[in-house]
Amino acid sequence: MSEALRDRMMLSQREVRPGEAEALELKPGELLQLVDVEGKQVADFVVFSLTDRAEWGSTSVSRSANDNVMMTLGRQVWSNRRRPLLELVEDTVGRHDMLFACCDPIRYEALGAPDHASCRTALAEALAAYDVTADRVPDPINWFMNVAIKQRGELEIREPLSAKDDYVVLKALVDVVVVVSACPQDLTPTNGGKPTNIRLRVYA
Amino acid sequence: MSEALRDRMMLSQREVRPGEAEALELKPGELLQLVDVEGKQVADFVVFSLTDRAEWGSTSVSRSANDNVMMTLGRQVWSNRRRPLLELVEDTVGRHDMLFACCDPIRYEALGAPDHASCRTALAEALAAYDVTADRVPDPINWFMNVAIKQRGELEIREPLSAKDDYVVLKALVDVVVVVSACPQDLTPTNGGKPTNIRLRVYA
Repeated sequence: MSEALRDRMMLSQREVRPGEAEALELKPGELLQLVDVEGKQVADFVVFSLTDRAEWGSTSVSRSANDNVMMTLGRQVWSNRRRPLLELVEDTVGRHDMLFACCDPIRYEALGAPDHASCRTALAEALAAYDVTADRVPDPINWFMNVAIKQRGELEIREPLSAKDDYVVLKALVDVVVVVSACPQDLTPTNGGKPTNIRLRVYA
Repeated sequence: MSEALRDRMMLSQREVRPGEAEALELKPGELLQLVDVEGKQVADFVVFSLTDRAEWGSTSVSRSANDNVMMTLGRQVWSNRRRPLLELVEDTVGRHDMLFACCDPIRYEALGAPDHASCRTALAEALAAYDVTADRVPDPINWFMNVAIKQRGELEIREPLSAKDDYVVLKALVDVVVVVSACPQDLTPTNGGKPTNIRLRVYA
């Protein structure tokens, strides 16, 4: 049982299928658990201030403020206005990515799969209700994505280290809307070759 | 003498002082040289499509498309719509950053220097003429910035490796507007402790 979630009341639970995305709102103090249901599945994740969508979770400010290339336990997701929005309070994996862009239609076209579902499209569709256009989908945090940084800075996408039921828990620090997609990439090792579901649970 | 610039006609030259920024437009095939005039000086750099400012140079797409955490010789600056905007055609240093956010007023406030000039403010002021608001200044490419990625992903800002008159040359692939600031950070090793000028030269 999760330490952070013990004695917490579950408010909602949803399942995100590969190529789809869900938006959900969190109040300060609420917890969001992202569960890798079957293992080796990446969840692309963006976050906005609920009160002003011109403020959003910034991977570059998070890297700068945390002095780390990754999100790791106890660190925070910072906004483009240098304000902490969320904190990573539990993590059973310890390996996530904040370097790669969302997969998108042009990426799949280059891979020979022009009509493939993509994280960018799914996130943009979920964000339309929040007046965020496709061009303004921020750079994502890619939970469970395993990217090696090699000599000379080369990046290599490897299979996630996450196994069945691994998860992260984020605590909202302010009112936010988060949007999560289950990455549908099946042409690279990103999701271990077989995209599967991400489960979202919100706790009071 | 630069190989890329030999026999090219210089169209313009400007000097950017620390804490200031310059915007300039480039046509396809034109070359932009950024010169570190005195050495150890970081140039924060953003780029937009001139015809549609909803398309801009994306560090995450550039990392993804180049499979590299840095910009290195022969690689391209890609847009949020996965289109190459610029190509790095010459580089006398070989060490630049695409991970850190611009310095901004809140960062300086945290460092005890609340009224300090910042790259974000300078870039935003230069971008106002192009209808880009401060919140939409993209993550920069920080030319000459020297960031070490250590064990466990820790980031450490070190003095730039660039010496007097070191430079990079970028070739425009489409019509773009680029904005360049000379970073005024004098409280960390970012600019070797003493911010100095960046020279911009455009060649036909």
